[in-house]
Order: sequence, then C-alpha cells, then structure tokens
Amino acid sequence: TQSKLPGTGTNIFSVMSKLAEEHQAINLSQGFPDYDCDPKLIDYVADAMRQGFNQYAPMTGLPALREVIAEKMNTLYGANYHPETEINITAGGTQAIFTALSAYIHPGDEVIIFEPAYDAYAPTIKLLGGLVKPYELAPPNYEIDWEMVKKLFSANTKMIILNSPQNPTGCVLSEKDIKALIKLTKNTDIMILSDEVYEHIIFDGKQHHSVALYPELRERSFIVASFGKLLHTTGWKLGYCLAPEQLMKEFRKVHQFNVFSVNTPMQVGIARYLKDPQSYLGLSAFFQQKRDLFRGLLAETKFKLLPCNGSYFQCVSYEHLSDEKDVAMAERLIKEYGVASIPVSAFYIRNTDHHVLRFCFAKKQETLEKAVERLVKL
Amino acid sequence: TQSKLPGTGTNIFSVMSKLAEEHQAINLSQGFPDYDCDPKLIDYVADAMRQGFNQYAPMTGLPALREVIAEKMNTLYGANYHPETEINITAGGTQAIFTALSAYIHPGDEVIIFEPAYDAYAPTIKLLGGLVKPYELAPPNYEIDWEMVKKLFSANTKMIILNSPQNPTGCVLSEKDIKALIKLTKNTDIMILSDEVYEHIIFDGKQHHSVALYPELRERSFIVASFGKLLHTTGWKLGYCLAPEQLMKEFRKVHQFNVFSVNTPMQVGIARYLKDPQSYLGLSAFFQQKRDLFRGLLAETKFKLLPCNGSYFQCVSYEHLSDEKDVAMAERLIKEYGVASIPVSAFYIRNTDHHVLRFCFAKKQETLEKAVERLVKL
Ligand SMILES: CSCCC(=O)C(=O)O
Ligand SMILES: CSCCC(=O)C(=O)O
Repeated sequence: TQSKLPGTGTNIFSVMSKLAEEHQAINLSQGFPDYDCDPKLIDYVADAMRQGFNQYAPMTGLPALREVIAEKMNTLYGANYHPETEINITAGGTQAIFTALSAYIHPGDEVIIFEPAYDAYAPTIKLLGGLVKPYELAPPNYEIDWEMVKKLFSANTKMIILNSPQNPTGCVLSEKDIKALIKLTKNTDIMILSDEVYEHIIFDGKQHHSVALYPELRERSFIVASFGKLLHTTGWKLGYCLAPEQLMKEFRKVHQFNVFSVNTPMQVGIARYLKDPQSYLGLSAFFQQKRDLFRGLLAETKFKLLPCNGSYFQCVSYEHLSDEKDVAMAERLIKEYGVASIPVSAFYIRNTDHHVLRFCFAKKQETLEKAVERLVKL
Repeated sequence: TQSKLPGTGTNIFSVMSKLAEEHQAINLSQGFPDYDCDPKLIDYVADAMRQGFNQYAPMTGLPALREVIAEKMNTLYGANYHPETEINITAGGTQAIFTALSAYIHPGDEVIIFEPAYDAYAPTIKLLGGLVKPYELAPPNYEIDWEMVKKLFSANTKMIILNSPQNPTGCVLSEKDIKALIKLTKNTDIMILSDEVYEHIIFDGKQHHSVALYPELRERSFIVASFGKLLHTTGWKLGYCLAPEQLMKEFRKVHQFNVFSVNTPMQVGIARYLKDPQSYLGLSAFFQQKRDLFRGLLAETKFKLLPCNGSYFQCVSYEHLSDEKDVAMAERLIKEYGVASIPVSAFYIRNTDHHVLRFCFAKKQETLEKAVERLVKL
C-alpha cells in the first residue's frame, strides 16, 4: 500500500526530546515548562474526578468551559463568541488544527503558510490532498511582504494559516500586517486558520492582534487556542477552536468522528479555575521576565540573538560562527554540551537552513542558567 | 465551500443524550456507566498530577503504559505486541479508528463494514474519499454469511472493519467466523480494522476471538481498544491502537499531526492501575450480572429481547407491537416514558429500520430497575 505521507518521519520534537533524554541534556527543545502548574488547578481536576465527572462530556465540550472561554474572549478582545455554536473544546491545539483542515481542505486546495512554521501544518495539508504554498521568511526579522503573499494567490487558494505570536520565531503580527491581510482577502473566499496558542505570551506592552478583533477576518476564520500553553499543562492535551457558526458546523462534523469528545474531569477543573480572570492575566509578565533573564544570559555566548516579541521561544543565529547544518549543530549541542534545542530548518518544508536554533525558555531560572553555563563553552 | 460531509448531522449519541437531559429521562442511550470507577484509579491520576506529570507525553504514549498493554495482550491472548513499535496510546478508541483510516484510505478505496455499525466508521471513510460497502445484517441474530461478504469484494477493497463484541447488537464473532475471514482474505492485501473496545465484556464463558490470536490476521490488522470501556471512565478519552510495525509506522505519521500526544497524568495513573491484572480480569462477570438482571426485568415488558453475548448493550425488538419508526419510538420513549435508548436504524447508512432499540445496561441496579418500571407501562 502506498503511504499517504511518504516523506514524513518522526517529528522533530519527538526526535530532539528523545535524544535529550538519552544524553541527559537540559531539554530546551520541545515547548513545555519544567516547573509545576498551579496546585489549585490540580486540586480542581482531582475534585472533579472524585465528584464523578468521569464519563463522556458533550461532543462540543463542557458548557461551563465554553462559557468561560466566551467571557475570556470578551474580556481580552471585546469579541463575542457564542458558547453554544461558535466554541468547541479539543484534545489540544494540534487536534483543532487537524480537524479544521480535515473539514475544509479538498484535494487540490492550496494553503498558504508562513515559514518557518509549526511542523504539523504542511503534512496535514498534504495528507488531505491539498497543496502547501510556503512563503519563506528569513532571519533576523522574518517580516512579511504582503505583495509577495498576493503572488501566492491562485484560483485554488483555500486558506491562509497565521500564527502569532509565532512558533518558532517569536514574531508578532502587527496591526499593519492584519490590515494588509484584510485588504488582500477582501472579495475572496479565502479562509483563515489562526493558530493563536501563544496569545497570552506577548512582550513589551505589545498587543496580540487576534483575528477575533477584526470582523472582516473573524467571519472567515478558525482560531486555535491551547490550555496547555495557557496553564502550563501541555500534557493535559486540551485546547479549543473558535469559528463562526457556519464554519464551526463543518468542524464539528469531523470532530465528532475524530475524537468525539474531550477529557471530562480536566474540562471541569479548568472551567472552575478560569472563572477567575486572574488565572490568565499576567502570563506575559511572567514570561517576559524569563525572556529577559534568558536573553541576558545568552548575551554571554557566541550566538547572535534574534528578536523575541512573543511566545516562549528564543531563536539564535550561529551563521557567523560556522557553516554546520543546523540539525548537526543541534545534535552536537546535545551530545557535546548537554543542551537540547530545535533546528529551525525543521520548520521549513525545504529544510531551508539559516543556521538558526530555537530554545524554549518556559523553564525554571536555574534550568536556564545551567543551560547557558554550558552554552558559553561553545 | 462544499461540505465534505453534506449529509451528516449531529451523531445520534449526542442527540439522544441531549434529549434525555432535556426531559430528565433515565439515560440508557449513550454507552457509559452511571456508577463510579475505582477510587484507587482516581487517586493514582491525582498522584501523577501532584508528582508533576503534567507535560507532553511521548507521541507514541507513555512507555510504562505501552508495556502494561503488551503484558495484557500476552496474558489474555498469548499475543506478542512490541511496546516500542506496535502499540500507540490514543485519545480514545474513536481517535484510533479515525487515525488508522486517515493513514490508509485513499480516494476510491472501498471499506466493507457490517451493519448495524458504530456510526463513526462510515462518515470517516467518506470524509477520506473512500467508499463504504455495507453488509446489512438483520435481527434477531445478525449472522454473517461469508459468501455474501465475498460478493462485496472488488479490486478496490482496501479494508474490512470488524467489531466484536459488537456495538449495538451484542453479537460476538465465533471461531468459525474468523476462520472464514482468514480464508477469504488469504492472498489478498485487504487490511482489517478490528474494533475490540468491548473485548472484556463477553458472556456465558464465550471467548473473545481477538484478531491478535490469528497470525494470518494479526499481520494485516489494526486493533482498537478503549480504557474508557475497560475502566468505567469513558470521559477520560484514552484508548490505544495495536498494529504490526509496518502499519503502525503509517498510523503514527498521522497520529503525531492529529493529536500529537495524549493526556499524561491519566496515562501514568492507568499504567500504575493496570499493573495488577485483577484490575481488568472479572469485567465479564460484572457485566454478565447486569445483563442477566436487565434481561430478567425486560422480560416483563412487551419488547422482544434479542440475544446479547457481549458488550454492554441490549437490543430489543418491537416489530410485533407497532409500525412506528424507531427514531420516533425512541423519542416517544423519552418524552412519554422517561427512558432514553438508541434507535438502531442510526447504525445503518440507509437507516434501515428493523424496529429495534438499543439500551445500555452499564448502569446501577436501581437505574435499570427504575427504567424498566417505566418501560413496562408501554
Ligand atoms: C507537539 S509540540 C507543540 C509545539 C511545541 O510545543 C513546540 O513547538 O515545541
Ligand atoms: C462516542 S459514543 C461511543 C460509543 C458508545 O458509547 C455508544 O455507542 O453509545
């Protein structure tokens, strides 16, 4: 039988996390915290299990959780999402992306993505028979020239995937970017899949320009969000998807046959926890402190720091140091220096190598300190 | 945009559970227990969260859990599945089915299913551009004539979906069935997707003939299993998939981009719990007692009981009582008698109506008694 993903191996996060473990390296590769989430949140989930919330949740998600999300969207963006018809809980942000694409991408449909990009987009599109139209951005600033985006449009352009704050670059779309996008997609049927899982991690007083803020985009957009990134519980695998009713209807048709429903006690616990807006405000300040610390430390290394305006990833360039391929460099950093990162070429379909590595700084201060102690030796 | 599932509405389980709730009916529709799981299992999950197991699990699943499953397969069936290469943890049985189909069904591929069938199979196949070839079985015994199966074969037959013990009929494949299947698929490339989520619920000393028992089938089969059904925790949405290495490789390519990984603390808790084989032995006896009780009670109603050899579903026929469509009958039972069931026509693509209803008996004795008290009034 023919493989539907012949070129696909194991994803880079699994590869690097495994290698990190084998070499007992400090793991700054995959994006997850090495500190604990709020014990109160754990208590709430344990309470939910003990209260007997252990059977199927509604397919669309727990009503209380959908309501809390609606309130959050209103508090943060003044956006109205109807909990009944426009919000759906998912088994993580990735499942939301996979499901939205599955619902809408027909064979031959073209999807524009901005690279470097989270490595799940392209293979999912290919699996569905779609065509990926990558727009390759380059360090240090990875700016988007919207005239170039326009050149990627064709009669088959079905969707554009956005991701701001961006993984892996830490770039953030500006209002100017969004306005350009609105202008470009006006009078088209092009849909937007806006991966906003790092919406709460944005620095230096910058605003997150959620597509929810712009009616012209909102009406054609899926927004993907993640409780794992919000609550420091990436292993709980809970997220959600927002979309106008018509789009959500098709999303749910697929969702119900993909996972059917999502972990009940965790939904109960998270709904209770998020009732207090303090639980989700203040995340940017928390991570900005880590970013500043980490950048300060990295300044002592030979790496060149790239900008980081959001997300919990810091990219560094070593172009001026060596010609070594970034995958080789990342492996060597693990094996010889005991620090795991992600080679950013893994985020380009063509594996374009700008000699950039990504480090995750959602780590304890001592972890970041120890890691950089090792990196200065390079 | 064209819908990929134009004919699909909300699945019958969501519809009936919602209607049941609205009318405060006793809900014997969707397949989940109304009693608690073992509190020890809850403690184990709470322990795992407090011990800090809250970040991404490996994409393939927690090694300890995969090892416990390998042992279980050995204990129960003398089957060897390699935990590293042949076992993958999933966000429930449904996600395993969706992922296996996504990995292998190309447009134009034909999949044979036995109806009545769990309602996720057909739309998933259609979503992928595949063709569903249903073989409609009929009450009271829903026997399979394997000569008829053979007639469904074509050059495009890619896969056969099995489900034993069967949802909704409670039928169980015999060794004779399996032998016929082996003969039919010999010298073909036809794959098997064996949905064995009710493997632990089989009555009157019958054996579960897992495809894992038969090397000729094992090598071409995905097996889907469910911790929700095994541990009375359908809302935790954890299951797993077994397949020989070559098939598992393609499964994982899709899995990693669909959900990436699965709830960590629940995997830790379940792995610890299942270390003791007593935790999964004895389930058949537990449910046989419920089946016998429920059948004894139902004997007082006007319904005709169909056989039930496995699963936690009991089907009844009312053909001799009325011509009413089964969907109408199910709705009326909720509204007028306060008992929710599932109309079995929902399990046929063509909605073939044999005037059969399905009741879930994974319920407390008092729930079953109360429900039948209401049903005798019919
Ligand atoms: C499944 S890994 C999800 C994204 C992430 O955390 C990463 O990019 O490292
Ligand atoms: C998603 S419902 C899963 C199957 C089941 O429990 C049922 O058939 O009722």
